[in-house]
Amino acid sequence: MKLPGTATITVPTLLLDEHRCRANIRKMSEKAARAGVFFRPHFKTHQSLMIGRWLREEGVSGITVSSLQMAAYFSAEWDDITVAFPVNILEMDRINLLASKIRLNILVEDTQSLSFLKAHLTSPVGYFIKIDVGYGRTGLLPDNDRKINELLALAASPNLQFKGFLAHAGHTYGCRSVAAILAIHEQSRLTMIALKKRYQSLFPDLMVSLGDTPGCSVAEDFTGIDEIRPGNFVFYDLTQARIGSNTTDEIAVALACPVVALHPERNELVVYGGGVHFSKDRMEGEPEGTVFGRVVRQTASGWGEVIPGMYLRSLSQEHGVLVAPPEELVQYQVGDIVMILPVHSCMAANAMKRYLTLEGEWIARL
Amino acid sequence: MKLPGTATITVPTLLLDEHRCRANIRKMSEKAARAGVFFRPHFKTHQSLMIGRWLREEGVSGITVSSLQMAAYFSAEWDDITVAFPVNILEMDRINLLASKIRLNILVEDTQSLSFLKAHLTSPVGYFIKIDVGYGRTGLLPDNDRKINELLALAASPNLQFKGFLAHAGHTYGCRSVAAILAIHEQSRLTMIALKKRYQSLFPDLMVSLGDTPGCSVAEDFTGIDEIRPGNFVFYDLTQARIGSNTTDEIAVALACPVVALHPERNELVVYGGGVHFSKDRMEGEPEGTVFGRVVRQTASGWGEVIPGMYLRSLSQEHGVLVAPPEELVQYQVGDIVMILPVHSCMAANAMKRYLTLEGEWIARL
Repeated sequence: MKLPGTATITVPTLLLDEHRCRANIRKMSEKAARAGVFFRPHFKTHQSLMIGRWLREEGVSGITVSSLQMAAYFSAEWDDITVAFPVNILEMDRINLLASKIRLNILVEDTQSLSFLKAHLTSPVGYFIKIDVGYGRTGLLPDNDRKINELLALAASPNLQFKGFLAHAGHTYGCRSVAAILAIHEQSRLTMIALKKRYQSLFPDLMVSLGDTPGCSVAEDFTGIDEIRPGNFVFYDLTQARIGSNTTDEIAVALACPVVALHPERNELVVYGGGVHFSKDRMEGEPEGTVFGRVVRQTASGWGEVIPGMYLRSLSQEHGVLVAPPEELVQYQVGDIVMILPVHSCMAANAMKRYLTLEGEWIARL
Repeated sequence: MKLPGTATITVPTLLLDEHRCRANIRKMSEKAARAGVFFRPHFKTHQSLMIGRWLREEGVSGITVSSLQMAAYFSAEWDDITVAFPVNILEMDRINLLASKIRLNILVEDTQSLSFLKAHLTSPVGYFIKIDVGYGRTGLLPDNDRKINELLALAASPNLQFKGFLAHAGHTYGCRSVAAILAIHEQSRLTMIALKKRYQSLFPDLMVSLGDTPGCSVAEDFTGIDEIRPGNFVFYDLTQARIGSNTTDEIAVALACPVVALHPERNELVVYGGGVHFSKDRMEGEPEGTVFGRVVRQTASGWGEVIPGMYLRSLSQEHGVLVAPPEELVQYQVGDIVMILPVHSCMAANAMKRYLTLEGEWIARL
């Protein structure tokens, strides 16, 4: 049950299948090229300069991040970064520092932040107006022309360049079918096109940027969209697989966890691997109830298919409790390694802070 | 709305009220002294050498941790450490290194691990047999004398010293009343006393160790118990308050989060503060539904009571969406700081990695 090349695993370790990851990157990059959209992948999932280089090898030249801290980290190798998060005016110094070094784009949705930026910016930044295409988290409603015009009028400043409209159709994460994702994607696309048409005469270069992983994974029609920003696709995960974004054999990360206790009397085994490793993200409403991860079969060079009926039913801080069918359970002993696909790879990767490739190479991240 | 002394907060920051924390420590320490039990607090909640010193000032001389990594970190200042996690035999080298330097206690529940330890230990360790008093995570059932005797017989070795039986009544976390916690505590106590009686003639010095924060917070009767190991009590949190372990004004940590977007049209505001800061732990079945945190009123020197109806309804990776009554919402602007009590302080502290006291001092942790 030991994986060749990972004999040194003694504690929970996030394994990265570089081949799967590069294949995911290539597939999305090729789709963007086919669709004629600028591919500005979100780097919040991997947060790694090394993995960023794999994206660059596929032609990526501009990136998306979700914090100024991430922008600062990636500014070592990238000079065109969009921070796809409502601008945090408390970080004005960091914004000015970054804007003096790279092409920085930020997001605004209110006049107060924009006034503050206008008064305090010392270098030029591009700004997108955040549009809420139905997710209901941040952004202006797309028909709010009064507010959009207020922002555009206020932003007349040499240091504020209007780039266009940006949206995140995060409500695709509530979908359970490709058809449902496509319906949201199409509605978002048409919303953004309509916005672009209304403002293009005043701003001939304005862009519309869209980009959730579910939509970008299943849609083919990006007509009228200028830029996409998917992020999770580099690794994918069980949540994305359930939505319909990917197959489970495209998932590029798995947590290797030592078995520490066997409980055949209740068809369970306990692993060293808990909420501090996986995060507490979960899938509810699965056939088994709530699921925190699924076990995959180990192969000579990595991992293969999901083992039916073997899943993480609960997570404490350091413990994970796995349900296992009797015929699977008997194959495990304490000291073995179990490989578990995460429910949410972005959060698991953030918790683990580094990756071990199947070739035994450690990959650092922020 | 700015807190004096925290004007430098620009990103999500975990605030620690040292006075509340020290009061929580003193209260539990005094209870242990009154009850005549050895107080071996769990350090997995704070994971900080500095906060450990506050515990030492209240007389603590032995500690509990949940990983060998934590044991290694705390071994810089502590020489009596119990790792309350099923022994991970893959970390044999770390066990031997620690056992050569400090008094190390570990947990066993199976013959395979114990045989492995017996064959590979190079320094003495104490071992507890883990007992499942009803939580159903790890441990032997208390009536499993066959298995207990098997372990005791196998462990005859100069490097393996039997310390006693250890249990964690984690099912108290499912309680919603003090009476329910007390019922579990009493049952666990009687179970451990019965075990002790059966094995005391063979092992006159054997100890029974118990110690979940809910039970230790509300119970007064620890007769027959030798040691308690609560952990969360140093900070407490909303989950413990709901269970009945503490009042909300005993909660010693709060996340300070910048406001980045206002959405009065839906009675919400968005903060910079997401799953990577709070963890994704939640309270389900609250009057409002699922709750990820609650907002407290800011005071001149820290924070006061919980603001009714103001809570975190969802967390993304970096975003938190707060519901706020209109009369509260109007008091906030972008760039303000909101203070939010976490649902689970252990997980939030693990995510944040350091603390800022209300006096402006940074406190490091593992």
